[in-house]
Amino acid sequence: MTDGKSKVLPNIESALEACELKSGDTISFHHHLRNGDAVLNQVLAAAANKGIRNLTIAASSLFPVHAPLVEHLRSGVVARIYTAYMSGSVADFVSSGALATPVVFQTHGGRARAIEAGELQIDVAFVAAPAADEYGNLNGVDGPAACGPLGYAVVDAQHAHRVVAVTDHLQQYPLCPIDIHQDHVDFVVSVNSIGDPAGILSGTTKPTSDPLGLKIAEIASRVIEASGLLKDGFSFQTGAGGVSIAVAQYLKVLMERDRIQGGFAAGGVTGELVDMLERGLFRTIFDVQCFDLRAVASYRANRRHQAMSASLYANPHCRGAMVNRLDVMVLGASEVDLDFNVNVTTGADGSILGGSGGHADTAAGSKLAIVTTRLTSKLGPKILDEVGCLTTPGETIDVVVTELGAAVNPCRSDLLQHFQRAGIEVMSINELRDAAHALAAAPPPRNRDGCIVGVLEYRDGSVIDVIRSRL
Amino acid sequence: MTDGKSKVLPNIESALEACELKSGDTISFHHHLRNGDAVLNQVLAAAANKGIRNLTIAASSLFPVHAPLVEHLRSGVVARIYTAYMSGSVADFVSSGALATPVVFQTHGGRARAIEAGELQIDVAFVAAPAADEYGNLNGVDGPAACGPLGYAVVDAQHAHRVVAVTDHLQQYPLCPIDIHQDHVDFVVSVNSIGDPAGILSGTTKPTSDPLGLKIAEIASRVIEASGLLKDGFSFQTGAGGVSIAVAQYLKVLMERDRIQGGFAAGGVTGELVDMLERGLFRTIFDVQCFDLRAVASYRANRRHQAMSASLYANPHCRGAMVNRLDVMVLGASEVDLDFNVNVTTGADGSILGGSGGHADTAAGSKLAIVTTRLTSKLGPKILDEVGCLTTPGETIDVVVTELGAAVNPCRSDLLQHFQRAGIEVMSINELRDAAHALAAAPPPRNRDGCIVGVLEYRDGSVIDVIRSRL
Repeated sequence: MTDGKSKVLPNIESALEACELKSGDTISFHHHLRNGDAVLNQVLAAAANKGIRNLTIAASSLFPVHAPLVEHLRSGVVARIYTAYMSGSVADFVSSGALATPVVFQTHGGRARAIEAGELQIDVAFVAAPAADEYGNLNGVDGPAACGPLGYAVVDAQHAHRVVAVTDHLQQYPLCPIDIHQDHVDFVVSVNSIGDPAGILSGTTKPTSDPLGLKIAEIASRVIEASGLLKDGFSFQTGAGGVSIAVAQYLKVLMERDRIQGGFAAGGVTGELVDMLERGLFRTIFDVQCFDLRAVASYRANRRHQAMSASLYANPHCRGAMVNRLDVMVLGASEVDLDFNVNVTTGADGSILGGSGGHADTAAGSKLAIVTTRLTSKLGPKILDEVGCLTTPGETIDVVVTELGAAVNPCRSDLLQHFQRAGIEVMSINELRDAAHALAAAPPPRNRDGCIVGVLEYRDGSVIDVIRSRL
Repeated sequence: MTDGKSKVLPNIESALEACELKSGDTISFHHHLRNGDAVLNQVLAAAANKGIRNLTIAASSLFPVHAPLVEHLRSGVVARIYTAYMSGSVADFVSSGALATPVVFQTHGGRARAIEAGELQIDVAFVAAPAADEYGNLNGVDGPAACGPLGYAVVDAQHAHRVVAVTDHLQQYPLCPIDIHQDHVDFVVSVNSIGDPAGILSGTTKPTSDPLGLKIAEIASRVIEASGLLKDGFSFQTGAGGVSIAVAQYLKVLMERDRIQGGFAAGGVTGELVDMLERGLFRTIFDVQCFDLRAVASYRANRRHQAMSASLYANPHCRGAMVNRLDVMVLGASEVDLDFNVNVTTGADGSILGGSGGHADTAAGSKLAIVTTRLTSKLGPKILDEVGCLTTPGETIDVVVTELGAAVNPCRSDLLQHFQRAGIEVMSINELRDAAHALAAAPPPRNRDGCIVGVLEYRDGSVIDVIRSRL
């Protein structure tokens, strides 16, 4: 490809032909369009139409919108899945034991590592591009499906054998700004729609209003304050859940009161972090993916709102990921156990309902990894003797915060006296387990005899757990 | 390097130790600091002090400021050189035949290709960083040696086994903006000065005032106008010479008159191109290296002034370099011959005085590659039967413009009638050769028996010529 001719092909089928996609190949997708993504389904429909079978899907995450993938798994068009997260019908299908080959669950950083190391080789990467030009320059900020930076797709585009951009907003050459450049893109396909904006920005992006959630957020913010990390240069990441956003709001008050300017906020970025950037509470944001429209607009307009690739974000084998520089990470949990191990991959009944995403990466990198969780869910206690599935090792978790108080990992005894001096309700993890079990009946023991349906890779590629079918 | 500790080392010697640099290794440098660069000399002095020998230097260009390299060549600290350009004492030393191993001359795009392909393996890349933070984020726009984008260094940083940033402007973490990210940098060294700003921005950045030069520029601008390429979406690159800048000025008048908005200007960027961007005559600039302070300031402030890596700029084996999308490239020449071959590597006496840089890359990529040259220099005619050294093959040159008129490459007969209709003084290349020889006596025949001191690689890595010593 050394000439300057347009790379635009008429449809996805012709892109599959141009890439010489064949049965048994590995194709990749990224999840910036989240539950609004229309690209994966279109590509698989085209592959199925062409009689291609036995594909491996390397998708950074899978959402309910990807339900049509179930039929492709049933019919043999797709045989294997690598992902960092799955929810919805595909997760249910996998949990049921219907897929012959176990799904490989990676972390976001582990996925980047595996791709860069050549461990996960991608034949064709499909990039859902909110805007593109005819020669393959792409951005995430223009067009009807604007979603912000394309941090996960950057790694795929750099390392895949072939790269196809799928867009619904083909612009005059050259595009400006550019998130992924023409030197990494082989072909461009224009389709009617790459995704539904309503589904793209579907995460919880408002602070919780639930009293228990607010109590947890308030304790978490006091934990951060008491840790001694909340000072000039402070760095912070949180997810998009209501409790996490409430923590950010509490921090905002503390930072404004004490005139603290943080170094950076990172993420998965919400409008709450943008607000803190604009108030000067952080000098910059590093953004691998936007969670709401305010974040998209900020990334579009503000040079201090910077993109980061999945490798820069969290790859444990690069020369220094952003997670290594995090002071505080606020994490969620499906289950926590007495060793501070966390499960965000399966639910109380053992069904798949998520995956690490960046959970294990940020826990490992940050100086203070705080898990915020209620003691119980509708299905029972969340603090258990042992997690049903090991997503994030307890040695990387420093504090567990519940509505009753905070438990400090024994390996972080240095934190204990800070917290006690600050009047934080400190309890042992066993006390939290007991309190949780007093509030809710434990569910029946889980089936441990099902077939293996998932294999969990830690960020360095080592296998740390398996998931068994519910049957 | 999976922790978050500072990467700062106390001095260059300690960086050499940390990188385990040893005799026989290959180390790389980039030339954004041009004739003001102080990094290469400091690194080689440190290597010499440590008793390291037999190094290969992969420098994107070498300037008179690098004269101390001669002593390292004499003493055996450095044994081999890869570069895209050399001038000054090092060039004189090589021309004299004193270096046992021939220098490998690459193009800017060919260098990026060779590095990405693993053909040119770099043990340690040294990045002269006008600003850096302790964890290896770098930019080219802050600090006393601000020079603009770091386009050549990007490729080295991505592919070298180890990467050392050398800076004189260590900033609070995290740096913002960032040209090269922490995930590509192993170590950071802070020194008193990485370079002299006066030497950094030393190129000719004003239009020529010489009547012959202006005549050439005026004809070149009419050639561009008559070619039919000067319309909306027009893309353009030129060097930093006085004639090239005068061409840009003539184009500015034409584009404003006809309300033409170009797609992009590329380069090596001067204030003249910035002025055209700011007047809306181009929608964006792609910048691999700034040639003056106005360009640096523009890159700092204007998002439409975008950085490009050497690979994006000119790598013939990437998925589409910017040069492939160039409509018009204005080039200089030391010599041109009857086959339209161009020499910008050696002078009339066969001495090395430059090299391709992006010459061969842009000629190959652009739709209309125009060589502007006077018929004669002080040393004799510049239009010859045969060039003394083949830098850029004639099949990639479309038009040669001299003060007497323009010669069109016979393979571009489609252009001839356009030019004649526009009243451009069209002559054959033989007529230009005759006119040049009528103006100046041909120099004595060159020595063809000297030892080989240089090997010229075309952008794809094939050898297209050799340089022999003058003796």
